[in-house]
Amino acid sequence: MFTHTHALQYEAKPDGPDANYARRLQEVLGGQWGEMTVATQYLLQGWNCRLPGKYKDMLLAIGTEELAHVEILVTLIDRLLDHQPLKPDSADHSKESAAAYGQSNPQHAIVNGGGAYFRDSMGLPWSGGYVTASGNLMADFHYNATAEMMGRLQVSRLYNMTDDKGVKDTLRFLIARDHYHQMQWLAAAEELKADGLDNIPVPAAFPLDEEPPEFAYAFLDASDGPDAANGRWANGPALDGTDNQLTARPIAANADAPILPPGDPRLYGTPPVPMQGILQKAKDALK
Amino acid sequence: MFTHTHALQYEAKPDGPDANYARRLQEVLGGQWGEMTVATQYLLQGWNCRLPGKYKDMLLAIGTEELAHVEILVTLIDRLLDHQPLKPDSADHSKESAAAYGQSNPQHAIVNGGGAYFRDSMGLPWSGGYVTASGNLMADFHYNATAEMMGRLQVSRLYNMTDDKGVKDTLRFLIARDHYHQMQWLAAAEELKADGLDNIPVPAAFPLDEEPPEFAYAFLDASDGPDAANGRWANGPALDGTDNQLTARPIAANADAPILPPGDPRLYGTPPVPMQGILQKAKDALK
Amino acid sequence: MFTHTHALQYEAKPDGPDANYARRLQEVLGGQWGEMTVATQYLLQGWNCRLPGKYKDMLLAIGTEELAHVEILVTLIDRLLDHQPLKPDSADHSKESAAAYGQSNPQHAIVNGGGAYFRDSMGLPWSGGYVTASGNLMADFHYNATAEMMGRLQVSRLYNMTDDKGVKDTLRFLIARDHYHQMQWLAAAEELKADGLDNIPVPAAFPLDEEPPEFAYAFLDASDGPDAANGRWANGPALDGTDNQLTARPIAANADAPILPPGDPRLYGTPPVPMQGILQKAKDALK
Amino acid sequence: MFTHTHALQYEAKPDGPDANYARRLQEVLGGQWGEMTVATQYLLQGWNCRLPGKYKDMLLAIGTEELAHVEILVTLIDRLLDHQPLKPDSADHSKESAAAYGQSNPQHAIVNGGGAYFRDSMGLPWSGGYVTASGNLMADFHYNATAEMMGRLQVSRLYNMTDDKGVKDTLRFLIARDHYHQMQWLAAAEELKADGLDNIPVPAAFPLDEEPPEFAYAFLDASDGPDAANGRWANGPALDGTDNQLTARPIAANADAPILPPGDPRLYGTPPVPMQGILQKAKDALK
Amino acid sequence: MFTHTHALQYEAKPDGPDANYARRLQEVLGGQWGEMTVATQYLLQGWNCRLPGKYKDMLLAIGTEELAHVEILVTLIDRLLDHQPLKPDSADHSKESAAAYGQSNPQHAIVNGGGAYFRDSMGLPWSGGYVTASGNLMADFHYNATAEMMGRLQVSRLYNMTDDKGVKDTLRFLIARDHYHQMQWLAAAEELKADGLDNIPVPAAFPLDEEPPEFAYAFLDASDGPDAANGRWANGPALDGTDNQLTARPIAANADAPILPPGDPRLYGTPPVPMQGILQKAKDALK
Amino acid sequence: MFTHTHALQYEAKPDGPDANYARRLQEVLGGQWGEMTVATQYLLQGWNCRLPGKYKDMLLAIGTEELAHVEILVTLIDRLLDHQPLKPDSADHSKESAAAYGQSNPQHAIVNGGGAYFRDSMGLPWSGGYVTASGNLMADFHYNATAEMMGRLQVSRLYNMTDDKGVKDTLRFLIARDHYHQMQWLAAAEELKADGLDNIPVPAAFPLDEEPPEFAYAFLDASDGPDAANGRWANGPALDGTDNQLTARPIAANADAPILPPGDPRLYGTPPVPMQGILQKAKDALK
Repeated sequence: MFTHTHALQYEAKPDGPDANYARRLQEVLGGQWGEMTVATQYLLQGWNCRLPGKYKDMLLAIGTEELAHVEILVTLIDRLLDHQPLKPDSADHSKESAAAYGQSNPQHAIVNGGGAYFRDSMGLPWSGGYVTASGNLMADFHYNATAEMMGRLQVSRLYNMTDDKGVKDTLRFLIARDHYHQMQWLAAAEELKADGLDNIPVPAAFPLDEEPPEFAYAFLDASDGPDAANGRWANGPALDGTDNQLTARPIAANADAPILPPGDPRLYGTPPVPMQGILQKAKDALK
Repeated sequence: MFTHTHALQYEAKPDGPDANYARRLQEVLGGQWGEMTVATQYLLQGWNCRLPGKYKDMLLAIGTEELAHVEILVTLIDRLLDHQPLKPDSADHSKESAAAYGQSNPQHAIVNGGGAYFRDSMGLPWSGGYVTASGNLMADFHYNATAEMMGRLQVSRLYNMTDDKGVKDTLRFLIARDHYHQMQWLAAAEELKADGLDNIPVPAAFPLDEEPPEFAYAFLDASDGPDAANGRWANGPALDGTDNQLTARPIAANADAPILPPGDPRLYGTPPVPMQGILQKAKDALK
Repeated sequence: MFTHTHALQYEAKPDGPDANYARRLQEVLGGQWGEMTVATQYLLQGWNCRLPGKYKDMLLAIGTEELAHVEILVTLIDRLLDHQPLKPDSADHSKESAAAYGQSNPQHAIVNGGGAYFRDSMGLPWSGGYVTASGNLMADFHYNATAEMMGRLQVSRLYNMTDDKGVKDTLRFLIARDHYHQMQWLAAAEELKADGLDNIPVPAAFPLDEEPPEFAYAFLDASDGPDAANGRWANGPALDGTDNQLTARPIAANADAPILPPGDPRLYGTPPVPMQGILQKAKDALK
Repeated sequence: MFTHTHALQYEAKPDGPDANYARRLQEVLGGQWGEMTVATQYLLQGWNCRLPGKYKDMLLAIGTEELAHVEILVTLIDRLLDHQPLKPDSADHSKESAAAYGQSNPQHAIVNGGGAYFRDSMGLPWSGGYVTASGNLMADFHYNATAEMMGRLQVSRLYNMTDDKGVKDTLRFLIARDHYHQMQWLAAAEELKADGLDNIPVPAAFPLDEEPPEFAYAFLDASDGPDAANGRWANGPALDGTDNQLTARPIAANADAPILPPGDPRLYGTPPVPMQGILQKAKDALK
Repeated sequence: MFTHTHALQYEAKPDGPDANYARRLQEVLGGQWGEMTVATQYLLQGWNCRLPGKYKDMLLAIGTEELAHVEILVTLIDRLLDHQPLKPDSADHSKESAAAYGQSNPQHAIVNGGGAYFRDSMGLPWSGGYVTASGNLMADFHYNATAEMMGRLQVSRLYNMTDDKGVKDTLRFLIARDHYHQMQWLAAAEELKADGLDNIPVPAAFPLDEEPPEFAYAFLDASDGPDAANGRWANGPALDGTDNQLTARPIAANADAPILPPGDPRLYGTPPVPMQGILQKAKDALK
Repeated sequence: MFTHTHALQYEAKPDGPDANYARRLQEVLGGQWGEMTVATQYLLQGWNCRLPGKYKDMLLAIGTEELAHVEILVTLIDRLLDHQPLKPDSADHSKESAAAYGQSNPQHAIVNGGGAYFRDSMGLPWSGGYVTASGNLMADFHYNATAEMMGRLQVSRLYNMTDDKGVKDTLRFLIARDHYHQMQWLAAAEELKADGLDNIPVPAAFPLDEEPPEFAYAFLDASDGPDAANGRWANGPALDGTDNQLTARPIAANADAPILPPGDPRLYGTPPVPMQGILQKAKDALK
């Protein structure tokens, strides 16, 4: 259950309107790696978490914080939209004005009447498919760490696309939180190992002796780039706690070309009906 | 440039048809974390990579290998679809037959005529939006490691949903490759650090002194779960190489509730026209 | 800014697991008219609201309540998924078991490991495009009232699809809240009129005398159904406060068939190049 | 069954080409609230309507009229695209030319060869998911009224984004029809009540005494905005025909925090296997 | 402009309800190749057609006919949904009942209240992106012919999935119309050639001498399948009216591996800043 | 199984950067008719092909070639993005600069850090739904021919949108390949007929005598365009090898308006409960 306070976790006051930049900011509100994603993802992982205690509590705490970031970005975009040119012949005769008009998002005016929405910088709606809660915390925490990296990367790029001091101040706050959250998820993944809850390779509970060992420790090179195997990934001990050695070899076929039998004639595929020779060949292939 | 060999990297021969299970396998072919995603993602990261050498070569090698996994899964699904019940009144009178009919994907018959396609187990088409190539290898390699974790997790679950020995044999191969690839991406991320190309927090090139420090090292607790701060993420030294200490404190507001000015009257929002008191209040708020 | 309490607004305890019904409940969690939609929609309308005071405060209050409903439904679905049959040959030999297996969502197991997600009952991800915040409160409040009608309708239907007393108890709570919220939005729309902020037709600020009057008060009948005009919509005074009378007449053309000029030859359309006669005819048509 | 007449219901002749504005008009052709939505929605509601007579006849009549509006908008956009700049270095050296090029939709040229298509102003394809036909006319008519409000709102905004007299003339027609249609749906919803077919809350046939009454008439305040309960929605008699009074109280928890049992170990979630203490706690929680 | 007649172009009366089959029929109503696609596609091609006369008139005629097919399928699905089992424990104790329940679409009941909608058999909404109107009639007519082939193929498959005589009768009508329409589009494509409006390769107006001739007539073999070139496509005269001969040769590289320069450092890609050696190498590569 | 060579099938070196044009090129990389579609479509058709030999071998060969075209376009876009203006106030003061900024894709910088991705020119992600492999080669080959027509058409249009000689050189290569591939698929479709594998109408295996003959050879005119029947499609012998003659007649109803019975009262549709008169009428209608 949630309660809401009429106050921002951090200030969101641009020096002036900029409809062009408002569109760009939509990326970190409603894009794949935006605040909508991390807020709803951490909450869902927390609600679905079947292990009571610190991990579940932490997930719900940070998910709730991220809701405040959604609020901050919506407010920032709203204020940047305080003036959006409706036609290209605005009073401002500069080239910058023409360019900014060209980059503005017409839906901000036509659909939202000068407000933010849950879409990215190209107008693609945010999708519930962006949210991952696999039930396995080790996999999820690596995903969360990635999300914070992508988030900090995108906000840092946006930081270099404006001279508005008010905007930059808000972005600095978001960059700092993404900094902290990267450390948080990496620390949490290590703690899962220390707590014996999972390990590399994820999921550790799948028995390694079920794997064909010749495929678990080899870099299979399928391209002719000369340096593909000149890294730690193809040399030295395995990173899974076993004493296997990593190696490299060219990719190779381990099975013949498949031959499929003719399909059900009621589906009218090609061939239209089972033909004698093909049928026998196909049946042999299925043995 | 690519060349293709008529041979499978690994065998894909089920013991018998199973349209129900064919539908389930679509998840790891055309789902968010399926083989289509990793194949096209690694290739795109490789092509876009602006640093010649081992990383680029490795990306193109592994992306090309993953194309062979797409081929394997398509073949496996095709064979599982060698018999798909078109009506519930099939010759087989068992409960299992009814259940399997219920789980089969009608598009496998109606649309594909008994073949695989690029959709997930609920029929959602694979999306180019699943593919991430951020231009920053550190962020991308963490994402790739996550993708291999999710992939191995999903295939391991599928492993427990069938008794078909031929299917299980193919899945073991895929599980082993995901095992290796998890290690590969984690090793590559470490090597990026060792090569001085990036670090935590990503992107390392964004100057830390631009961040407000009170937000970069604190867990801000927004929920009342008692154990949220009882982890490494809120205690001990920072994980970014600085000598800062991680701490925890409750979430707090750092700015008042925002007041937005009335919108452009040509957009017919509410309020319909700027009203005197509101306008002044809003103007003050924008100062 | 939000804070979260580890407690449910209402109990969400099914009597037993039911993976089939868990799938169905996804509709009111992640479907077009589900709790994700109303929670994020009311919050966005509140944040974007440019009129400080009761409407904005109310929007943020109810949006925050709806977040608790998302939490309730996720919890309910998680518990219904406590046992999900992974294969059709389960220990339970009843026909009901086979049917329920057939209706279960394989992603609940393969992707989520036994948890809810933000998709509807057919696996379509929730979309940010479901959320409308037009900037015009009158239009938005009518949409909100509709959303609560659709919500109560869908939950009432789901109520008739289970015999689980625990589930039914939770649904009764949701039905009651949708009952209240329908009244709330209808009352709020009336209050907007009373406050002089808008009226029918929305937006009232667009001047009526710009409209061609012969089209503003007439039902134009385009089908031969005999009773189409036998309703209030084609008889009696207008509902917009003017003294116009509603009437009905058959649909009629008010302009000739359009003739388009040939396209830019650089776009290689048909016709491939402007042909003499066509060109002249088209030019005339543009006059 | 339909027949088509080569004539427009209303003229669609712009004074001159404007590729920029053509893109904007796509919103009311192929956007969520565009003519494609209302045409196909009213027809679908009509076809699905299980009550013969005036409502069904009216739905089919108006849906057919809306098809003519689709035709009008396609024609208008086609003519606005009679000249689309293919490169920025056009003969026209004005700033307006540069701006308009920037706002034009490249798919209008590359994909359509200078014609309209069924996408919105940001290029998102129209979706069958926009169409609602719930089987309950009361809910649907409120949705239809909303659609006409959103439609008139968007066209009114577009009216302020051009100086082209021909375009404005067509828009005036559309605005007038949306005016009429708003009244139509509101009148039809009232008539449903008068005919005893439904009522507030929708669906009226769900028995009110199944609802927990303490949740059916109370505004539950989840935010600290001071004015949230200062409206009709929290004061005065209920709007459902009963003699209940509306009230307000703070949101409160009615159930403890949920504790979920460990998941199926075959799904490799966290915790990896049921641990003793957790298992007992979880079992207790399920009682 | 359209008018509608309350009558079906062909009967749509199933012998009895079948919710399972209703779901399957959604494919040819709201799937990629369903009636919604062809109806709106032919109309859009007709409206956008810039060549007055027989082609434009024919497109609008057939598009209008297809609207009647949409109506027929909606009616057929509605009637198949006259009884949809809401729970698996229905009165009917047969295996077929369980199977059919498993295949039914829960949204038919929860969302639509027992009616059709614009989605495919897996619940994916119909998309405006299915509609192609390229402005080039030759390309469009080939697409239209394909659409009728796919349509007839899918309906023929559905024909084999039911024993309901009423359903089969309606499907026979649709199959016959798709038969005619295949011939229609193939004839129309030939007539475009005879009228000198386009030719192979489309678009004929792009000058052939701009093409590098060594790539216009050769099958480039990129796989080791022995029979890839044993067809008309790699032997004999060209099909474009020139006297070139078709040939085959293995695929070969015509350019070195590309080397990309480092990216803009403000985007924080890898490498983080232009490094000396790389930079020079990259600059050379760009020459 | 695939192998990759570090070399391009054709050069992809623009004379200079052009972020505007990079966005436009996304259409033929990640749009519906782009290289991603044809590469994955031909491969999928080849893998799914149940007829061993020349058709299957050819499909896999050409699908593999198309992967090289994906690589070429990614490289071309990457190089065009070597300089992307991050703000409108760039050093270049020309109108062209402002216009190009306006047309550039902000995700190229924010999301990809200066690289290509799998989306179209309006930012819509590529979809697995673009790929068709129906199991029927005749239908698929017509689709493939269409894809090459659309591809050549779009690249030819793009050719007229740039003056960059390097870009134009690459496009000429792609245009030539699309030229060849159009001929290839048309030849292959003819060869299928010659081999007796299918015919017009597709699928030939569905028995013609199951069709009602009055609907298989008639153009049914549903519009009043005077020239709709003045083409080969309504005159002369059928194109299906029979001796039927094509004719034209106006569209006509063959069945009454459908009357649907009331719905299941548990679904709360309208009417809310079966009403006496309606029920009887509806039951009669179902006979």
